[in-house]
Amino acid sequence: MRFSTQYIPTLKESPADAEVISHKLLLRAGMIRRLTSGLYTYLPLGLRALKAVEAIVREEMDRSGFLEVLLPFVQPGDLWKETGRWEQYGKELLRLKDRNDRDYCLGPTHEEVMTDLVRGEVRSYRNLPLRLYQMHTKFRDEIRPRFGLMRGREFIMKDGYSFDADLAHAEESYKLMYDCYTRIFSRLGLRFRAVEADTGSIGGNFSHEFMVLADSGEDTICYCMNCDYAANVERAEVVACTHCADGAQDLSPYEAVPTPNLHTVAEIADFLKTPKERVIKTMLFRVDGKVVAVLVRGDHEVNDVKLARFCQASEVELADQATVEAVTHAPLGFAGPVGLTIPIYADASLSGATGCVVGGNAKDTHLRNVSLARDVTVAAFADLRTITENDPCPRCGGQVKLTRGIEVGHIFMLGTKYSDAMHATFLNERGEEHPMIMGCYGIGISRVLAAAIEQNNDADGIVFPWAMAPVSCILLNLDVKNADVTKAVEKIYAKLEGSGVSVLLDDRDERAGVKFKDADLLGIPAQLSLGARSLKNNCVECANRLTKEKTTLPLERFDDDFPIWLEGVRASWDARRKTAWVSGSTLSRNLLVS
Amino acid sequence: MRFSTQYIPTLKESPADAEVISHKLLLRAGMIRRLTSGLYTYLPLGLRALKAVEAIVREEMDRSGFLEVLLPFVQPGDLWKETGRWEQYGKELLRLKDRNDRDYCLGPTHEEVMTDLVRGEVRSYRNLPLRLYQMHTKFRDEIRPRFGLMRGREFIMKDGYSFDADLAHAEESYKLMYDCYTRIFSRLGLRFRAVEADTGSIGGNFSHEFMVLADSGEDTICYCMNCDYAANVERAEVVACTHCADGAQDLSPYEAVPTPNLHTVAEIADFLKTPKERVIKTMLFRVDGKVVAVLVRGDHEVNDVKLARFCQASEVELADQATVEAVTHAPLGFAGPVGLTIPIYADASLSGATGCVVGGNAKDTHLRNVSLARDVTVAAFADLRTITENDPCPRCGGQVKLTRGIEVGHIFMLGTKYSDAMHATFLNERGEEHPMIMGCYGIGISRVLAAAIEQNNDADGIVFPWAMAPVSCILLNLDVKNADVTKAVEKIYAKLEGSGVSVLLDDRDERAGVKFKDADLLGIPAQLSLGARSLKNNCVECANRLTKEKTTLPLERFDDDFPIWLEGVRASWDARRKTAWVSGSTLSRNLLVS
Repeated sequence: MRFSTQYIPTLKESPADAEVISHKLLLRAGMIRRLTSGLYTYLPLGLRALKAVEAIVREEMDRSGFLEVLLPFVQPGDLWKETGRWEQYGKELLRLKDRNDRDYCLGPTHEEVMTDLVRGEVRSYRNLPLRLYQMHTKFRDEIRPRFGLMRGREFIMKDGYSFDADLAHAEESYKLMYDCYTRIFSRLGLRFRAVEADTGSIGGNFSHEFMVLADSGEDTICYCMNCDYAANVERAEVVACTHCADGAQDLSPYEAVPTPNLHTVAEIADFLKTPKERVIKTMLFRVDGKVVAVLVRGDHEVNDVKLARFCQASEVELADQATVEAVTHAPLGFAGPVGLTIPIYADASLSGATGCVVGGNAKDTHLRNVSLARDVTVAAFADLRTITENDPCPRCGGQVKLTRGIEVGHIFMLGTKYSDAMHATFLNERGEEHPMIMGCYGIGISRVLAAAIEQNNDADGIVFPWAMAPVSCILLNLDVKNADVTKAVEKIYAKLEGSGVSVLLDDRDERAGVKFKDADLLGIPAQLSLGARSLKNNCVECANRLTKEKTTLPLERFDDDFPIWLEGVRASWDARRKTAWVSGSTLSRNLLVS
Repeated sequence: MRFSTQYIPTLKESPADAEVISHKLLLRAGMIRRLTSGLYTYLPLGLRALKAVEAIVREEMDRSGFLEVLLPFVQPGDLWKETGRWEQYGKELLRLKDRNDRDYCLGPTHEEVMTDLVRGEVRSYRNLPLRLYQMHTKFRDEIRPRFGLMRGREFIMKDGYSFDADLAHAEESYKLMYDCYTRIFSRLGLRFRAVEADTGSIGGNFSHEFMVLADSGEDTICYCMNCDYAANVERAEVVACTHCADGAQDLSPYEAVPTPNLHTVAEIADFLKTPKERVIKTMLFRVDGKVVAVLVRGDHEVNDVKLARFCQASEVELADQATVEAVTHAPLGFAGPVGLTIPIYADASLSGATGCVVGGNAKDTHLRNVSLARDVTVAAFADLRTITENDPCPRCGGQVKLTRGIEVGHIFMLGTKYSDAMHATFLNERGEEHPMIMGCYGIGISRVLAAAIEQNNDADGIVFPWAMAPVSCILLNLDVKNADVTKAVEKIYAKLEGSGVSVLLDDRDERAGVKFKDADLLGIPAQLSLGARSLKNNCVECANRLTKEKTTLPLERFDDDFPIWLEGVRASWDARRKTAWVSGSTLSRNLLVS
């Protein structure tokens, strides 16, 4: 492949609207272009990288015995009405009407369509298990599309579905996919970790997310230093602690105190000379439209995913200023639970709390010496907060740590959620009708590409993992006007092409500096260059984009030495992955039955 | 690949709603399933065939130097408003709004999006030509989705676009694609013909359709027996003839005659003892909503595509009964031009016509001795009818023939239609700004699959062309319970897999009859079978699905003989294509400048 006849429009400057590094670099490297909010075009090199990811995912899915199919992207609304998700799914589900005024949606996921297919086909336990997958376009009308491919609206997904006759076989399917995903992300050269996760709008019994570790990740992962526990903090259970209830307390009645110009928990704790954990935050949320208050300690954060699960709600959002003012009759920042008539839920750590400070539902006012049991009508205490590094591991009580990750895969044990709703049943050996046990398994193909770049980049550009690079080699002709140099470069190019090494020849009439800069920006793992000087020395310069190691190979020994050097480049990726933070590559049985 | 672990749900009966043979056979062979009107799921074997088509198209597009990209399927309405197609494109363009109430559509084609990409990138003639393509989902909200994959709403298309600096280079791009398409359909093993075509809603200067020849085709092709002229009848020009104006005529005034119980042109011609060509049909159409009348001879048919082009309209449909009755004040069947106040267009063959019979705009009444020039206000005479086998070749005057075809590809010389509307310009060598000259080039990938089956089938099922078969071989174990047979079959299976021959092993516990029936239905080119009897004779039975020739290969000579036999199966496809009705494989220069 020649640079001159390819279409690789690299940019010197980062486009202003690109916020994260993968977005900037994919644009600068001429791999994607933005059409409009959340919609991107893949240019030739970006598409090659995407296809490299697809190919590995397909190989490993096939190896797992899942069969590839292709479902329509546009889906009839009637199926979504059968499962109730037509109403439950938020605005991410883009609904539309066809020319006959029938309801349709753009598929954000395919549980309904797949279940509809299978219920029309499978009658007997003899047809089970049935394990299918597809690789196709998805659309989610994100409220804030951002970060380029990381959170686009239209994207490419591999989604797999399993149908089994009983739980034991369903767990086998789940385990097949857990292992398959582990192989996929390992082969892709990514440092990742599988973590317990919330099942969200897909639902089901339990799930695991596969997280690519990166500081820029939108998700936070909690993992134990002592055992193999790891979970998305959305999900990680907090073992109840009772700090607030212990020790000596002032049990006198609560009183209002003026707190002008005090805004943060820290300022109020300081002013009132009380520990932060005794300053209770009162947060108002809309839970499926209904306003509720949630109480957490000043040093804790409300976990809205746990709140949604607790309320069995599909949409949870922080109440806006107008709502807060209408409910509390006070400006923002002074909400408190005393006297509120909306439902109040408190985090379990506040059970029995006395001697607390809360907002006074009046401007510049807080209350102190509040005792929850005495002064507040708490509808329920529950695990509603996000775990912190001060909390014990919910599995073993050991120390936990937090880190950031990007969700690239998610596997769900769905149970009978969809097969019950859609009557996807089979007859067992005794002729009895049962719902099939389902699982579903997604990988965000286009997000993998972005996540890989978030994890692998440097000041000069992308550092493409070997397995997903658009080409393995880039070969720079540093002096296209020198016939001898060009002849030598073309000879190498022909050799590489002939031996099946994928190579991009930079044959443009550009300065050497431009070519090296573009080569670094594109992130091709193996860089070869040849100019007048190296030709004089009868050698070609080689550089490993990952390790930055440089080597000079004599031209007369090229046929022997180059394959060895290239294998070294490949091996450097294996080494990087293995020495990095390691994923749990086996699935504990206890995770499966949790 | 084993039948037992694949998912190939063959059906004994044809589903009632399948009208054409490809739809019936794809359903029966377990290759597709219907989700809802015009939306189909590809099951594993159907998807393999689809991918085989994709692979050949991709190889030949790459070979032509076109670069693969991937554009969003969901498109912003604003771009379509720039070209005016937001209003012009009919209801096939499925319009929708996102959560922010912005206009979008599901891409039925990608001229706007591609032009938007390129105008943001290309500044100089140095960047041209730019030739891009993609392989992606399309959606057209067909008024009557039917015939399975032949006219679905969601389908897979390869669409390519070229951007050139001048007409000469644009014609080079067009020629590249003409030759590329010829290679593609030849490699796919199809009998096809490239024909001149109407440009329809895509527009542009001229176009060619690639037609797979099949009696069930929706299109009619006209070709000359004498020269290389071939065109879709929608497009084929009629050289004006003046039969009606010649000879002796009765020039007395027209008079009404009662014609009770006479319905057809033939009946009226008979009754009035006048030739059919003197009975004028008056057809009412809605042209972009406006009602017009079109006159043609009784032995001719109105060509609504020509009518649309003549009126520069985007939608033309036959007026409904209520409209006809309101305009003519008469029941259906008696419309005539005399006294009508709507615009009247007459086919050129009626120019100067006298002594004609027309509808009387009253029940059971016709008028005779009508002279168009004297009695009717004709707004314009134009080529508005479909060519017949009685018309001369518009190129050479030779004899033309009609045949049926299925459009699988269409290439367009767009000119500057889109680059003008969207200001996609470049600076030439003298620094002058010019619009790019565009071309666009589509292949309906999923329709190719259906068209191939329409052309290649028999009473037993599909006869897959070698190049697009899901697998090359099917191997039937005729006695799975016989350990010796199974051992011999597995040995052959391992050999085929090891030598890279794609093979489906029918290892099901089914009767031999079921397996042979399914093998024929699936249409796999090479059939091998082995049971107790053939094992006793130390041989394997081989059958060519296309020629139905059967051979017996001795097991001990299998390694030597099988590759030769298999090559014979492949070659039988070459032979079939070459002996069949031949396509014009070179593009006459005069077609390009027409």
